[in-house]
Amino acid sequence: MWFASDNTQPAAPEVMAALAGANAGHAASYGADADMARVTAELRAVFEAPEAEVQLVATGTAANALALACLAPPWGAVYCHAEAHVNSDECGAPEFYTAGAKLVPLAGEHGRIDPAALDAALAIGRGASVHNVQPAALSLTNATEAGTVYDPDAVAALVALARPMRLPVHMDGARFANAVAGIGCSPSELSWKAGIDVLTLGGTKDGCLAAEAVIFFDPSRARDFGFRRKRAGHLFSKHRFLAAQIEAWLADGLWLELAARANARAAALGRGLAATPGVTLAHPVEANAVFARWPRGLHKAALAAGAEYHLWDFDATLDGPDDEPLLARLVCGWSTTEAEVATFLAVLSSEME
Amino acid sequence: MWFASDNTQPAAPEVMAALAGANAGHAASYGADADMARVTAELRAVFEAPEAEVQLVATGTAANALALACLAPPWGAVYCHAEAHVNSDECGAPEFYTAGAKLVPLAGEHGRIDPAALDAALAIGRGASVHNVQPAALSLTNATEAGTVYDPDAVAALVALARPMRLPVHMDGARFANAVAGIGCSPSELSWKAGIDVLTLGGTKDGCLAAEAVIFFDPSRARDFGFRRKRAGHLFSKHRFLAAQIEAWLADGLWLELAARANARAAALGRGLAATPGVTLAHPVEANAVFARWPRGLHKAALAAGAEYHLWDFDATLDGPDDEPLLARLVCGWSTTEAEVATFLAVLSSEME
Amino acid sequence: MWFASDNTQPAAPEVMAALAGANAGHAASYGADADMARVTAELRAVFEAPEAEVQLVATGTAANALALACLAPPWGAVYCHAEAHVNSDECGAPEFYTAGAKLVPLAGEHGRIDPAALDAALAIGRGASVHNVQPAALSLTNATEAGTVYDPDAVAALVALARPMRLPVHMDGARFANAVAGIGCSPSELSWKAGIDVLTLGGTKDGCLAAEAVIFFDPSRARDFGFRRKRAGHLFSKHRFLAAQIEAWLADGLWLELAARANARAAALGRGLAATPGVTLAHPVEANAVFARWPRGLHKAALAAGAEYHLWDFDATLDGPDDEPLLARLVCGWSTTEAEVATFLAVLSSEME
Amino acid sequence: MWFASDNTQPAAPEVMAALAGANAGHAASYGADADMARVTAELRAVFEAPEAEVQLVATGTAANALALACLAPPWGAVYCHAEAHVNSDECGAPEFYTAGAKLVPLAGEHGRIDPAALDAALAIGRGASVHNVQPAALSLTNATEAGTVYDPDAVAALVALARPMRLPVHMDGARFANAVAGIGCSPSELSWKAGIDVLTLGGTKDGCLAAEAVIFFDPSRARDFGFRRKRAGHLFSKHRFLAAQIEAWLADGLWLELAARANARAAALGRGLAATPGVTLAHPVEANAVFARWPRGLHKAALAAGAEYHLWDFDATLDGPDDEPLLARLVCGWSTTEAEVATFLAVLSSEME
Repeated sequence: MWFASDNTQPAAPEVMAALAGANAGHAASYGADADMARVTAELRAVFEAPEAEVQLVATGTAANALALACLAPPWGAVYCHAEAHVNSDECGAPEFYTAGAKLVPLAGEHGRIDPAALDAALAIGRGASVHNVQPAALSLTNATEAGTVYDPDAVAALVALARPMRLPVHMDGARFANAVAGIGCSPSELSWKAGIDVLTLGGTKDGCLAAEAVIFFDPSRARDFGFRRKRAGHLFSKHRFLAAQIEAWLADGLWLELAARANARAAALGRGLAATPGVTLAHPVEANAVFARWPRGLHKAALAAGAEYHLWDFDATLDGPDDEPLLARLVCGWSTTEAEVATFLAVLSSEME
Repeated sequence: MWFASDNTQPAAPEVMAALAGANAGHAASYGADADMARVTAELRAVFEAPEAEVQLVATGTAANALALACLAPPWGAVYCHAEAHVNSDECGAPEFYTAGAKLVPLAGEHGRIDPAALDAALAIGRGASVHNVQPAALSLTNATEAGTVYDPDAVAALVALARPMRLPVHMDGARFANAVAGIGCSPSELSWKAGIDVLTLGGTKDGCLAAEAVIFFDPSRARDFGFRRKRAGHLFSKHRFLAAQIEAWLADGLWLELAARANARAAALGRGLAATPGVTLAHPVEANAVFARWPRGLHKAALAAGAEYHLWDFDATLDGPDDEPLLARLVCGWSTTEAEVATFLAVLSSEME
Repeated sequence: MWFASDNTQPAAPEVMAALAGANAGHAASYGADADMARVTAELRAVFEAPEAEVQLVATGTAANALALACLAPPWGAVYCHAEAHVNSDECGAPEFYTAGAKLVPLAGEHGRIDPAALDAALAIGRGASVHNVQPAALSLTNATEAGTVYDPDAVAALVALARPMRLPVHMDGARFANAVAGIGCSPSELSWKAGIDVLTLGGTKDGCLAAEAVIFFDPSRARDFGFRRKRAGHLFSKHRFLAAQIEAWLADGLWLELAARANARAAALGRGLAATPGVTLAHPVEANAVFARWPRGLHKAALAAGAEYHLWDFDATLDGPDDEPLLARLVCGWSTTEAEVATFLAVLSSEME
Repeated sequence: MWFASDNTQPAAPEVMAALAGANAGHAASYGADADMARVTAELRAVFEAPEAEVQLVATGTAANALALACLAPPWGAVYCHAEAHVNSDECGAPEFYTAGAKLVPLAGEHGRIDPAALDAALAIGRGASVHNVQPAALSLTNATEAGTVYDPDAVAALVALARPMRLPVHMDGARFANAVAGIGCSPSELSWKAGIDVLTLGGTKDGCLAAEAVIFFDPSRARDFGFRRKRAGHLFSKHRFLAAQIEAWLADGLWLELAARANARAAALGRGLAATPGVTLAHPVEANAVFARWPRGLHKAALAAGAEYHLWDFDATLDGPDDEPLLARLVCGWSTTEAEVATFLAVLSSEME
């Protein structure tokens, strides 16, 4: 019963096979290989964006930070949700890569930026003088840290607020596949057609070992990317092993299939939890994560039964009264089985009886 | 009727005379002069802190940013009021000097950090792992950006929250003289005795041309200061001209006398405004600034009459209905006269009749 | 005939098999997995350093830059060979990670720092005041960029110059395995026993896909490593895939066996080239790379025959007189065959007849 | 007998008077005052550059570092003399302000870059790929750190090497007045007419207290200057005190008159030293500094007689054999008197008898 994170999952067999394939013989280094050319063409096709600039790195934090550094100067302000990964879970990576830009944390329910909060922050930004950081970019996380998604209209609505100020818009798509699969739209509808300028497209949580793409729909924004990546140590010499992962992951829509599977498990888990007495869902289940609260005693039982997941209140512990409700985050991955979900729900139900 | 800022004020005659005095003949450069030795001794005496490390720079932004860089690593979190100068008015200077630390903006009425807000933020910080920025420092602005002050008990109460986490505490004292004069305490009571580790003590707004002291009550924190200052271009070759300003400013308590004069004018202005029909004070008047709201029509009249001050809502303009109330900030300085205050109040009153 | 770089080589079959093994089932993320515990124990054993702190990243540039950032403050001076990878081939990565430290380029034949050059630079450093960058670290590359090695005595001689100034010493060991194999010493003799404080141990060029270890023999130097790595985006979520590579690479001395194979090919290539009329070796062949000069006409023939290698003079081209000698770099890897070497030598010889 | 540095000199009386004048009444802050408008107009006139962007700061290190940060990206290479102030005496300020650019130190006699050394370095730069720092700017120091000058032809010759690579050219003019006065050319001839894009024009060493101008002859290069200056804490609130210094310093050619006076004293000192038995000039005397060698015993006598100057070999001390020659730097300022020079020469001569 592994619900700790999608990054505890194994890689998909197709991806492993591609690695082995890429290892046959020599290949040009640093992305000059044939694999990378194919990946670029494939991503352009998948996103219906023939001009897009495509680059690969190995981690989502690097992808996000490099992307933001291409958008925001050191004196820039980047607007994002307070709980966005870039703001809360990257140990200051965007600040490091931008040489000190400021992330402006915004409120919003269920992990989604409240348009009114963005509007208010931008209004302050419009009055910026030399004494203030300058509005530089908007960053959206999709799927969000709360397991919800922005649909194309929700993205477009936020973009519409940023556009009059000419702010480029970044999407942290560590779970973009889950968002697309959850909504049922096309990749382009949820990205450039909704106004996204730069997308970090995550493979690692969705069946790769360690591979993320940064897609600049406005290729002029990518001008410095190569220098920034190299000087950050994120240009792989044996780059083909990044390319091979993404190539296999995209082939025949595997990436969306894996995400849909994870989403389906989360949906089942969410439905089951919602039907379990004493359990309350904290957020709508729209991608591959479930956030729910139930009493501490029940957590003890679930964990004792071998379930792996995180208590999500930053200071929650198993010490305390058994009836106090505690928030849990449960993440499903491509390899989560129906049986795991069923067993977990059964453990909870049996305890509640 | 100059109420635009304390930095539009002239320097005090005593300070100007000291500059002329320091210009007689040659002097050793970079702070090795006799003036600096005297300033160090004098500041230690004034603050009853014989071990304190004292350094001078020319601007408050430099003083703050250098001080914070001595406290917070690049992956550090600095807790401060959302409206603190370091967060809102320094174009990201702390981020620049710390190589990317994160300022955590906190709420609180009248420019003062709400202890509950600090407590909540620190609670999150206590749970920090390698994925998160690490709690590094608390920064208080005193007098605040709202013209209020923290008294020693208020400082100590916030420090008490930070101490269990071993956070050093910085005070942005660009208007520290006004705070001390307003409270009527001693400089030590409002600084190290209340738990402050590093104070940036502002002279520029209180009668100097451009001179600020950074006082490390815990001298071990100052270890890197010299390198940071030099590499930022803030080590003056003709350093005696900084030292001479501070020396004259401290002599015979001039610094507190000047601040008290500015505070007295602000108090009179505040009382007058509170008594003026249609005018509402936005914050208590505790130092040298007054924040008040009155109708746009009255602003037009005051500005037309030659008053100099800023509308303080970031997006306020004179275009709009005459009866809409707009927030003004009025700052008094050491050279503000009783007549200026009286004239200004008279203009407003006459318009309200 | 692939002699372009050791990073065009495939990964060793044992490493590929380990990846597949690591993919069986779930695993804790971010290095909390069992693989990493085994790798740590194994590296400590191999280096006879039971206290060493061990961390993994995916690229050599990241390993070097993170290591140096743990040694040098932003105002530090890092002494290195002018042609060192950290100085010449990382697009300023050390400057990025250290927030602006200065690399002091030193001369020396055959890629090795001339002790007299180091001594002269350190003498200047000893006189450093607040106006100067402060001596912070010595960085040695072993094997060097010229295909030569420092033996333990040569390392110790340079360390002896740095020790009186308490400078920590870093070794860029992207080809450390080749150096150890070339010298026939133990890993500890070429590292901490010779005075190295931090070693970046390269797996990528020696049979891994993308895996490097940073070994802090003085673990106190590693205090900030975790924060720096995370905020640089180099902490892998599926960290087991890094650990698995290194584990397989170390097992049964595979790493030294692969390096010895590459070295043997380079030695044969060097001997053959030295015996070829018109060819001159530029550096002694002590590891897995050969630098030699021969006439442009012969380069044309070799490249036309399908040989892959780089002209090494930064501005060398095939345009020009056929008899002008041009420098080539030829790198052998674990998978370079005797036949490749023989064929290459035969092409050259037949052209010279 | 003060020859320690031009920064031990007092400010000129005209500058002190201007400060007092600027202190009359209130003034708009942050450079929005009338003084700054006049300074801008005056500098444009003096330099025959009606489009130039003019900004003021208080120190030469800040001026240089801000200027270079406007020219070089973090992955840029800045070519300069190895002994240039920006490379050797600013504790890494350019690296700090540029977020990690690399200064490429070049050789050259008497403090002037050898064109062949620049040419060789640029040739390497022309071959730069993503693995290398990118050629970004050329920086010349005039007058040089060796007390020599580049005349307009010498500047133009170096610029001619940089132009095909589109490198902007910076001049560190901490002693630009001395260079202009020494050559007898116009300010424009030694700056933009010779190809300089950005000049840092030093007032501090030539009669100001602390004031430097940064002049962008290509104003498009100044786009980010304001943000960089503010976030570095170098935007003065009481900016008029910077402007007043420069205004008085420029008035009626005072700046060149003061520099000419300093140069004349240095010339006399140099002639006298050259005629003193046992003394050897190390560099031609072309501005306001003299570098000469004479025996240690004679240094002891001169210092005992009250002369103030620096031994210039980084490790020179008074301990050692009396007959060993040691290098001295002697700097004259606007207030150095003929009598000081004569007395100093007499001390040396009497000792040599």
